[in-house]
Amino acid sequence: MGSNGTSDREDLSSCDAEEASDAFDDPGVEETKIEFGVLFDIDGVIALGLNPLPQAREAIRMLICPETGRPRCRSPSSLTAAHWATARRRSCRSGSTCSPDQCIHSQSPLSVFTKWHHKRVLLGFTNVCELEDVKKAYPLLDMVDHNNRKSVANGYVENPDFPRIECIISIGEPDRWESYLQLIIDLLVTNGKPDKAPERYPDTHLPILACNMDLVFKAEACMPRFGHGSFLLCLEALYEKITGNALQYTHLIGKPSEITYRFSEHTIAKLAMQIPGAGPIKRIYFVGDNPEVDIKGANLYNKYLGRYRRLSGSLSGPPTIEQIRAIRRQIDISKSRMIPDDAEFMEHSAKLFISILVGTGVYNPSATSMCGPHVYHGHRDIERDDELTKPHFYFDDCHKAVQFIFSKEKFK
Amino acid sequence: MGSNGTSDREDLSSCDAEEASDAFDDPGVEETKIEFGVLFDIDGVIALGLNPLPQAREAIRMLICPETGRPRCRSPSSLTAAHWATARRRSCRSGSTCSPDQCIHSQSPLSVFTKWHHKRVLLGFTNVCELEDVKKAYPLLDMVDHNNRKSVANGYVENPDFPRIECIISIGEPDRWESYLQLIIDLLVTNGKPDKAPERYPDTHLPILACNMDLVFKAEACMPRFGHGSFLLCLEALYEKITGNALQYTHLIGKPSEITYRFSEHTIAKLAMQIPGAGPIKRIYFVGDNPEVDIKGANLYNKYLGRYRRLSGSLSGPPTIEQIRAIRRQIDISKSRMIPDDAEFMEHSAKLFISILVGTGVYNPSATSMCGPHVYHGHRDIERDDELTKPHFYFDDCHKAVQFIFSKEKFK
Repeated sequence: MGSNGTSDREDLSSCDAEEASDAFDDPGVEETKIEFGVLFDIDGVIALGLNPLPQAREAIRMLICPETGRPRCRSPSSLTAAHWATARRRSCRSGSTCSPDQCIHSQSPLSVFTKWHHKRVLLGFTNVCELEDVKKAYPLLDMVDHNNRKSVANGYVENPDFPRIECIISIGEPDRWESYLQLIIDLLVTNGKPDKAPERYPDTHLPILACNMDLVFKAEACMPRFGHGSFLLCLEALYEKITGNALQYTHLIGKPSEITYRFSEHTIAKLAMQIPGAGPIKRIYFVGDNPEVDIKGANLYNKYLGRYRRLSGSLSGPPTIEQIRAIRRQIDISKSRMIPDDAEFMEHSAKLFISILVGTGVYNPSATSMCGPHVYHGHRDIERDDELTKPHFYFDDCHKAVQFIFSKEKFK
Repeated sequence: MGSNGTSDREDLSSCDAEEASDAFDDPGVEETKIEFGVLFDIDGVIALGLNPLPQAREAIRMLICPETGRPRCRSPSSLTAAHWATARRRSCRSGSTCSPDQCIHSQSPLSVFTKWHHKRVLLGFTNVCELEDVKKAYPLLDMVDHNNRKSVANGYVENPDFPRIECIISIGEPDRWESYLQLIIDLLVTNGKPDKAPERYPDTHLPILACNMDLVFKAEACMPRFGHGSFLLCLEALYEKITGNALQYTHLIGKPSEITYRFSEHTIAKLAMQIPGAGPIKRIYFVGDNPEVDIKGANLYNKYLGRYRRLSGSLSGPPTIEQIRAIRRQIDISKSRMIPDDAEFMEHSAKLFISILVGTGVYNPSATSMCGPHVYHGHRDIERDDELTKPHFYFDDCHKAVQFIFSKEKFK
């Protein structure tokens, strides 16, 4: 890999051949109907930290009208359904405005996790408290923090009425890992109320939802930097060492989990509804820089789509909610990645996610890997499968990627 | 265990019977000659965080003259050799002054690691730099730190002349773990100069010395708090996940490593020299609150002393430096715990370290363990051995422990 357009999977041979064909050939569709969408990762694709990549400006200029921030139209009678949607949470400095409905953050899928919306959670939802609230209620738990030392020295006592936490949601690398690691583990071992030591560490702990499991990401530095996945690794190691039990995520959200790509497909479908003449979106191009995260996620989701299609093939009409839930439960993925029962989405329309790897981020085409072949940077809940890290296509940068997409889709 | 004075090892049967006898019976010694010393851990024995334990005041009053801070003397003709020496780094607020030569910190043994004294080390010795210096030289590596962001935004560039780091020494839980973890790993993978990504992660990394491996310690909170051992656990987990190689400590210092007890024996011997009439110190009582750390360390050191005595038994006179080094190398302990060749100490005098566990800290006699029997809180370089966590004696607090010591030693 390294030459533009090449790939171990250039002929899409790794996809189910029938699905690939189905994704591209549909003689019944009007020529002018747009059936594709585009998703971009940010770090390493659009920007490096706060610095936008120059090629990204060109790419977006092709897709978005700079004055309105809306997708570019060819003519009144044929409208684009190529949407600009980010897959990471960063402000876009590439010269276009980006509306919130076009931005997908790692925690965005939480909006469909309705079961948790009224629980008392740390860091999320309606009945919210943040770590600072926990620290104020239990200052003795974090005396490393000098503000807590002062409070305690001034006679502050713990708040016995601080309500029990029912769920923990971690959405990104915190500031001061030691505080978060200590307090999250305190909450886990005391079932949400750390006012006294437990008699025994619980065999099962509070629900914990984690969003974004990237071990590293590419920023301005010469080497990738620790991501939220590194923080989670520390949390897992500490919890297991201290209690002897493995930490179990109730939900693991963010690339490469299927829920994130399901949510992305749903988001693109919703945006397409706002564009008159846009057909059901059958093909979604995903441009990313991290094979183990972005590319693998797209390929895992293709497997999910294939299984879903096979399991729902016998249904005579659109599936009911119960049928959808039953189908989801039959798809064999690890428990923490399963799509929750109460998640409601636009009906599937995508036949294929086409993965495009670029060389401006984590993946460096001119360098051999820094680590040996035995090294695995994926999360422990995601089975290693090196075949799934191979993209459909490779391009040096996202501008070349978008030029290719337009050519493939015969879009001007 | 739980009743004062009791122990699974009350009759010292776990010691070598000959050594125990030798440690206590010596008819040739004058009655008034003092042959014992006392070591105390601080956290959970003398104090809980900043709060001194009330029983500790009584204990120290027995040992130290409050006006002078020096050991109490019985009469001009018989002088004590009972010394007050701490085994942890905390300011002593129990009502006595404590001279620096009586305080042993986890990093104190580094004074004998002369090989490293002129290397360029991160956090130690003569050619010193601290993490803040590394951050200033390479601000892009830690853009989580807002000061670095400002520097970079103001045009600061990396310093290409910042000298290569030759060794890393970690001596305690840092402030802001994410910075330390990231930068230490950057230094390890770039062999001390993180100005560009390595072509390949090195198979062997920079020397790394770690002082204090306590996973947790007892402070004011209702549950033990993360210690430096927790930080090291995170470092080990991250290094292995990122590079695929296990982190290898060159030296692991602090309880329960033998080097710390060797240094303590040496310190007590030096202090004894300042007291006229004090004989060679044959028995050292060590009062601690953590079975896996304090007690195990004393017992590991007894095994070390026994082996050293057996290996040096055939020598006709005091061993030469070369003979000492040869003996050390024959004693089978893990590489990171071996006493370095250039370490020079007062000659061994101790026959036995007598371990005393108290119930005011990590060990809670009225509670069953919070974790299951399969759980091991010791460091991975220290083999698990539950027999070695059993103390010679147990007492509720350090005051009762000192009363016992005086009775055992017939000291008034």
